[in-house]
Amino acid sequence: MKDEEEGESEGHPEASARSFGSESDFINFLRQRLSESKEVSSFIPHPSSLMTGIGDDAAVFAQQSGRDTVITADLLVEDIDFIRDAIEPELLGHKSLAVSLSDIAAMGAGPRWAMVSLGIPRDIWKSSSIDRFYQGFLDLAKRFEVSLIGGDVSRAEKLVIDSIVLGDCAHRAAVVRSGAQPGDQVYVTGALGGSAAGLKLVKQGARLSDLPTDDEDSHLVASLLLRHLRPEPRVGWGLVLGQQQLASAMIDISDGLSSDLHHLCAESNVGAIINSADIPLDHHVVELCGHRKLDPLILALNGGEDFELLFTVSPQNASRLPRKVDGIELTRIGEIVDAAEGIRIREGSRVWDFEPRGWDHFRS
Amino acid sequence: MKDEEEGESEGHPEASARSFGSESDFINFLRQRLSESKEVSSFIPHPSSLMTGIGDDAAVFAQQSGRDTVITADLLVEDIDFIRDAIEPELLGHKSLAVSLSDIAAMGAGPRWAMVSLGIPRDIWKSSSIDRFYQGFLDLAKRFEVSLIGGDVSRAEKLVIDSIVLGDCAHRAAVVRSGAQPGDQVYVTGALGGSAAGLKLVKQGARLSDLPTDDEDSHLVASLLLRHLRPEPRVGWGLVLGQQQLASAMIDISDGLSSDLHHLCAESNVGAIINSADIPLDHHVVELCGHRKLDPLILALNGGEDFELLFTVSPQNASRLPRKVDGIELTRIGEIVDAAEGIRIREGSRVWDFEPRGWDHFRS
Repeated sequence: MKDEEEGESEGHPEASARSFGSESDFINFLRQRLSESKEVSSFIPHPSSLMTGIGDDAAVFAQQSGRDTVITADLLVEDIDFIRDAIEPELLGHKSLAVSLSDIAAMGAGPRWAMVSLGIPRDIWKSSSIDRFYQGFLDLAKRFEVSLIGGDVSRAEKLVIDSIVLGDCAHRAAVVRSGAQPGDQVYVTGALGGSAAGLKLVKQGARLSDLPTDDEDSHLVASLLLRHLRPEPRVGWGLVLGQQQLASAMIDISDGLSSDLHHLCAESNVGAIINSADIPLDHHVVELCGHRKLDPLILALNGGEDFELLFTVSPQNASRLPRKVDGIELTRIGEIVDAAEGIRIREGSRVWDFEPRGWDHFRS
Repeated sequence: MKDEEEGESEGHPEASARSFGSESDFINFLRQRLSESKEVSSFIPHPSSLMTGIGDDAAVFAQQSGRDTVITADLLVEDIDFIRDAIEPELLGHKSLAVSLSDIAAMGAGPRWAMVSLGIPRDIWKSSSIDRFYQGFLDLAKRFEVSLIGGDVSRAEKLVIDSIVLGDCAHRAAVVRSGAQPGDQVYVTGALGGSAAGLKLVKQGARLSDLPTDDEDSHLVASLLLRHLRPEPRVGWGLVLGQQQLASAMIDISDGLSSDLHHLCAESNVGAIINSADIPLDHHVVELCGHRKLDPLILALNGGEDFELLFTVSPQNASRLPRKVDGIELTRIGEIVDAAEGIRIREGSRVWDFEPRGWDHFRS
């Protein structure tokens, strides 16, 4: 999040700097943001279930018999989970919500409510950054009819964001990680490796705001940066797989395919065999790697934050799978086997142990 | 939270240093913590409503028709909201949950589920501090039959805690801030000023672990430090006031009586007149202030984090109020009036404007 001097930002009426004199000012700002957000959209709140939101000790919503609530929290810390000057505030707002929407999708549930707790450094308290953060957050929320109902705010030295999303699904219909059985087919939505390639580019100094227009790589670089900075949660796929009880187990790919497959297999107490030739590679990554001599398969196997869904389907349900949801295709990449067979990957005629080499906060 | 070298902590078997080699280790640690916590207690989980918790993409619990869900989040940041070396890890765990339980109580609801997101500095990742933090968190959770169902973890430079608590209440029975009417009586639970006095002592360098045993002030200082470091949320009072529909509006005193009364009046669009002689002063504060020439009334009016409940009751309901809940008394301190009359405080024969001078993250 780039700080802006108050004086400078006067030229940007849509993103003017706000000065919060008190927490009441902040609550009023949020309320105004939310009412603006509703005025300009076709957003229809879920009927009469929200009792009270921003500005009370807690938010309240109605329960419905026969439904389950699904809740997730995702903590993003500056310089650990993002680099503030590499991500525009709107994109950071988008991404903060997207990572939690992805978790709800991975449960086969539909998102409904969001809360966000912000620890805000002094240098951006009086800038337009907070306003722009909520712009990105609320734009994505609106697309999926998610209501922002609360959160908290504090000062902090580094920007800290805790994104909390509540969703719901039919009673006992949530898709957990532990339901995979030997014989189930393994699927993944979309394509992999794009976010990891985008992160590599960020670390090399590439910035969306700063791409040369005459460089042949520029369109590729921009696509990959956006794949990392503006991930698309697979909300539609999650809903379809959950509502139609198609997936036996599911996880979203946040740490990387290798690590997240291990998580799913550990919870289900199964093994898996993956065909490396079947892994859907992000075509921008393939193109860029061709230019730069990187291996797109390594990025697809171990790169994190693709936020695609990795799930298992019993053979008798496989024919009921849709081919696309929201334009996003599905790929079968392997099969669940007995735990004793381990987690392996087949490359041509050779089979390797498929080690978890994705992102881990405790090792990095 | 005090860091401990791994070597040093070997002498404390109950609080041994754990080394998390991966996030899976952390999840296993949490699961073990939770199973230990259940084994040694009379804790009875709410029947069959928790589907899945720690270790999946999200937690899931069943909805019940005719009930509302109440949810709050509280962000605590090191050096802003607490000083790590002034609060033992167990107390920090306790306090993190207590502040959110207090919010649920202030809605007249009962707490049921908790999540905690932690941003953990490298120097305490491999210490016993995290274990001890959860010990304090889970001990308090057990007292109120609250289940820890999820959260997130990241690295951070400063310790960051986001505490999320979900509660429930009968449909449309939540007590909001906006229900006060002119003529309603204003009440507060317990006594005020103790936490602010404790904070003053912390800032002067007083530490629980470090009090002289021969000092006549020591027992007072310890009581006040604990009032600040180990607040007791008024869960019982919140439940009684909500279930019996006794309170017309309610808020917990986290910023200070003056500020929180303003919040309640602003939401209800009313004024209030408070009698300063009726404000219940923490007797330890009165005693300490006698020794040290401080004004206990100022601490009671503007000091934050007492986590008592401030609420309004219509005259026809006043006779139904219990005198004590869980040993905590109630005090009538004033009356709600028309908004035009403002928010004032009567001291003897004089009446002053009662300015909000409590804690505000945006001004401090």
